Amino acid sequence: MRTLNKPNILILGGGYGGIMSAVRLQKELGSDEANVTLVNKHNYHYQTTWLHENAAGTLHHDKTRIMIDDIIDMNKINFVQDTVVEIKKDEKRVILENQELTYDYLIIALGADPETFGIQGLKEHAFSIRSINSVRKIREHIDYCFARYNNDGKRDELITIIVGGAGFTGIEFVGELADRVPELCREYDIPREKVRIVNIEAAPTVLPGFDEELVEYAINNLERRGIEFLVNTPIKECSEDGVLLATGEEIKASTVVWTGGVRGNHLIENAGFETMRGRVKVDKDLRMPGYDYIFVAGDCALIIDEEANRPYPPTAQIAIQQAYTIGRNLKSLINGSNELETFKPDIKGTVASLGKGEAIGKVGNKKLFGATASAMKKVIDNRYLYLLGGIPMVIKKGKLKLF
Amino acid sequence: MRTLNKPNILILGGGYGGIMSAVRLQKELGSDEANVTLVNKHNYHYQTTWLHENAAGTLHHDKTRIMIDDIIDMNKINFVQDTVVEIKKDEKRVILENQELTYDYLIIALGADPETFGIQGLKEHAFSIRSINSVRKIREHIDYCFARYNNDGKRDELITIIVGGAGFTGIEFVGELADRVPELCREYDIPREKVRIVNIEAAPTVLPGFDEELVEYAINNLERRGIEFLVNTPIKECSEDGVLLATGEEIKASTVVWTGGVRGNHLIENAGFETMRGRVKVDKDLRMPGYDYIFVAGDCALIIDEEANRPYPPTAQIAIQQAYTIGRNLKSLINGSNELETFKPDIKGTVASLGKGEAIGKVGNKKLFGATASAMKKVIDNRYLYLLGGIPMVIKKGKLKLF
Repeated sequence: MRTLNKPNILILGGGYGGIMSAVRLQKELGSDEANVTLVNKHNYHYQTTWLHENAAGTLHHDKTRIMIDDIIDMNKINFVQDTVVEIKKDEKRVILENQELTYDYLIIALGADPETFGIQGLKEHAFSIRSINSVRKIREHIDYCFARYNNDGKRDELITIIVGGAGFTGIEFVGELADRVPELCREYDIPREKVRIVNIEAAPTVLPGFDEELVEYAINNLERRGIEFLVNTPIKECSEDGVLLATGEEIKASTVVWTGGVRGNHLIENAGFETMRGRVKVDKDLRMPGYDYIFVAGDCALIIDEEANRPYPPTAQIAIQQAYTIGRNLKSLINGSNELETFKPDIKGTVASLGKGEAIGKVGNKKLFGATASAMKKVIDNRYLYLLGGIPMVIKKGKLKLF
Repeated sequence: MRTLNKPNILILGGGYGGIMSAVRLQKELGSDEANVTLVNKHNYHYQTTWLHENAAGTLHHDKTRIMIDDIIDMNKINFVQDTVVEIKKDEKRVILENQELTYDYLIIALGADPETFGIQGLKEHAFSIRSINSVRKIREHIDYCFARYNNDGKRDELITIIVGGAGFTGIEFVGELADRVPELCREYDIPREKVRIVNIEAAPTVLPGFDEELVEYAINNLERRGIEFLVNTPIKECSEDGVLLATGEEIKASTVVWTGGVRGNHLIENAGFETMRGRVKVDKDLRMPGYDYIFVAGDCALIIDEEANRPYPPTAQIAIQQAYTIGRNLKSLINGSNELETFKPDIKGTVASLGKGEAIGKVGNKKLFGATASAMKKVIDNRYLYLLGGIPMVIKKGKLKLF
């Protein structure tokens, strides 16, 4: 319930940054201190970092999504299920599809849009791993293509899957496909060797920026399981028939999944904020430059790693940490203090899954391979569930079979 | 192994008529009496009468298919996995995709083709329930359409399913859909009331020829579960957008499944035999008129019900009974007798399933409804498995939960 004299805090987006901001504010603020409203398109939050498994069909999407009323206390936080249409920054208003909301403080945590780098036809013809809706569509599309194969003239393109981009998501996705495709072959009576899974990357290596030894382990592992890699190979065009490479070669494929990168949400640019690839270079305390009452979290916030002199990648880990800082900083502001905390990411480690029981990663200076890395990945996933909803949430949605 | 002086018996098709002929010949004939060869496209037989469940997604197709080497003794019967291309009746040769075979006796049990009654676009745009391949394609197509709904603008046609024909298969199929669709709605976050399942029939009633009281029970049951019926309504045209009715009304639907009838296999007409809707009006002993050494079984054989003065419907029950007669008649011929048995169908009963635990039927003069009819249907299915492979086959593939 909104009451006079209490500031209205509006959170846009229920992804990692948004939902954790809500959870933190629920903890940090008494109900007499502020009205907090969370706006999200769906009545569920989802683990973006697990979506590649849903897309491949190795994990059901209901494992990946969590009902919002399982996370936040609806008596303390107002929840509005609606889609954000426009942010009117200077009027402190937000237009939703079905209503308008005003705010005193705003947290923008709207997540990413796919970055297609202007590649022709990609937006229209490639699938992307971005939401529960989009990934179950990928799963069913692949299933349907396999089901068509023995009916529709055994055309190779029906069982050719192209994954554009060999970054984190691309590699994790082909790892799941390597697990899933043999099952699909059994289901639809298709010889495994007929199926092609091709990972195409414009950069000279897969997992750019990753430790070389780990990358080599990953490539060897995936190639052994039937993944083809084409690095140093930009995609020139995507059509409903497949892709045309910059080399002039054409690969026919009924399924093209683009994982080649993300940018900040277009609503931020549309609102007139200054962005770089849709992201806002936020102040040290995570506020929008020039807008003391707006915070930015997650994929829409650009933070420079001063040591490496480049932006931190937009990860779940950082989004979650930002929510903690935003929670404390908002509490300070509401209590009349202007001493805000500086956000500093604390990178605990990075692990990329390569499928069931296989992963690579780095935790501190320690490199992890295979089953150990895979177990660490699950520990990280479970830790997030713990932050979200404590032990009960870990039990409900956790990946508890570590080995 | 083929040996000189032993006649070669060739069976074309591994459906009910063909596989049961093989089973019967394996029993009736000693291995010194004849060489028996079964030709089938796949290395499995399938229960055509269960395919509507696979198409709806309520039963996995592996329950419906049985590996041929689980049914026949490969040491006694030669099995050739190949597709029949042409029957050269006067040369006693059959052309397969990969080889040619000669015969002394032939059993044609090639099954049915869909009968589209010349409706424009039906062959190209409608699915049909006819094989393992075709039904798992239907299942995945429907799944994919539901998965697309929340991505692709919530277009009604994506979740509209038209079933053309309200005969046996059409009614059994919509009964399964009534069970399946609520599951799909949960899976893809779609309100059940948005989904349309429309059964369209040109004749004035559903299940033409069936007992009126049973038909009324079926319609009430199915309407209560969300099936719409349009009887007396011929389909004029089918396109990728849906159907155009003879009334001028258009119904947009991404899925059109045609169950409106079958005709005999085109290979029989192509071979130059005289047919009615692709079926051969066989002699009383099931031989091809004018061809003493060719038998016809199953959907390709036309048998007149003298009492009703119309053809018996092409059912599994009759095909199985024909195989018994053909087995005995072939044994007589090989033993030099010309006294062949006359085939007379013994209609034990007819039960149409309406989904899980629901059916209607008539056994003798007794009408069956609901759970009783459903249990009887399973008894019939299990009896066939018993005829095919004895108790072990019933245990392996049977429908053992009767209630």
